[in-house]
Amino acid sequence: MDKKPTLFTCLSPALLHLFDLHNAVVVIIDVFRATTTIATALYNGAARVIPVAEVEECKRLGNVISGSITAGERDGKVIEGLQYGNSPTEYPREFIENKTLVLTTTNGTKLLHMAFAKGCSEVITGAFANLSSVCDYLVSQEKNVILGCSGWKDKFNLEDTLFAGAVIDKVKEQFVIHDDSSLMAREIFRQQRNDLYSFIQHTTHWHRLAAYGLHKDLEYCVSTDVANVLPIYRNGELVVA
Amino acid sequence: MDKKPTLFTCLSPALLHLFDLHNAVVVIIDVFRATTTIATALYNGAARVIPVAEVEECKRLGNVISGSITAGERDGKVIEGLQYGNSPTEYPREFIENKTLVLTTTNGTKLLHMAFAKGCSEVITGAFANLSSVCDYLVSQEKNVILGCSGWKDKFNLEDTLFAGAVIDKVKEQFVIHDDSSLMAREIFRQQRNDLYSFIQHTTHWHRLAAYGLHKDLEYCVSTDVANVLPIYRNGELVVA
Repeated sequence: MDKKPTLFTCLSPALLHLFDLHNAVVVIIDVFRATTTIATALYNGAARVIPVAEVEECKRLGNVISGSITAGERDGKVIEGLQYGNSPTEYPREFIENKTLVLTTTNGTKLLHMAFAKGCSEVITGAFANLSSVCDYLVSQEKNVILGCSGWKDKFNLEDTLFAGAVIDKVKEQFVIHDDSSLMAREIFRQQRNDLYSFIQHTTHWHRLAAYGLHKDLEYCVSTDVANVLPIYRNGELVVA
Repeated sequence: MDKKPTLFTCLSPALLHLFDLHNAVVVIIDVFRATTTIATALYNGAARVIPVAEVEECKRLGNVISGSITAGERDGKVIEGLQYGNSPTEYPREFIENKTLVLTTTNGTKLLHMAFAKGCSEVITGAFANLSSVCDYLVSQEKNVILGCSGWKDKFNLEDTLFAGAVIDKVKEQFVIHDDSSLMAREIFRQQRNDLYSFIQHTTHWHRLAAYGLHKDLEYCVSTDVANVLPIYRNGELVVA
């Protein structure tokens, strides 16, 4: 019998119920741009990132936590009543160090809370920006893994799938991986790895964000290990493991 | 403004609610093996195929319809009380001509009934066996299209996705196609088209069916246009359009 732990890829929050999360490590993936921004803020010294789904909760926490920054966007603009947007470039060290970032993200936060409610062992967040940290952690834990793609309003998206494929390509020897989602993710990544930036220009999310002039953001979001820390979820906050 | 109809790919029945089916043509895809067997039975002269989800309904219809064949498998064996299995090779012309095939299929039938309940214009079934007929029909209708992958117990599968990619590769000029699922399906198909039979040997479904000695079935299921008819759903039955 094979003693390696299993690894599965979940392509949408709407499919999460199909997976056994008990005692597993769940990687929340929201490459454009939440989990890239989370890695970047923590890499640049943020004390913690609090992911919230609702704008009102974001404002409330911003009021009660000293040294906090509230952030969130809709349609490429900072949400009224919040201070900053979703771009990783907004959080350089001189700005974010030792502060608390309260970040409104719809797709990623929903998946994170679902995973936590289903009894998983740990929740971490992943993006190309912290690929190596994610992979090193997964290999070290020797637990079952669910790569959770946040998608867009429950729809499949390619950028999260590509990142799942990048993880699988690095950790495949340490896990039993038999599901078609993982096989597909790895094939797509292998096919496109040498020019991810060109490929993502075909995705729906690229068209949505590029319309707001966010090309530099998107290029950063597919750059590997540029903010190589491991965000781990503890007591409602993401902190560096 | 672009006047072409849209085409979307739905990767699992659990994601069907995300799509607008109103007045659209839905293609039910269950390559291993329901929609391959449906095409083959109709190509070989079956009067009609009645897809049913439940074994008891299959038996009941078998009793009341003269000249009917009841069919269905679980775990590679004919279900007790039914007469034949799910293999396309079981339905040559000399056996199935002018008969009614009452076929129990779990994943495909579920998706078909869901699509029909959501107000689509037409439901047809597709597999590599009838690829050209499906594509010709879609182009001729000038309606929006949903390529509906049946999956396996709501999980993503590669064989249905590959067929979606094959359709997209043929009809892409006639539709507006912007979703990441379709882009992924087409990329995977283009990458693997020259040796589909080797590639599908990596899939989970291949491992499940190959364990029952069904290699020949699976090779047939990825062969193009070997049963090139168009099954269309009318009054609870699939008939040749």
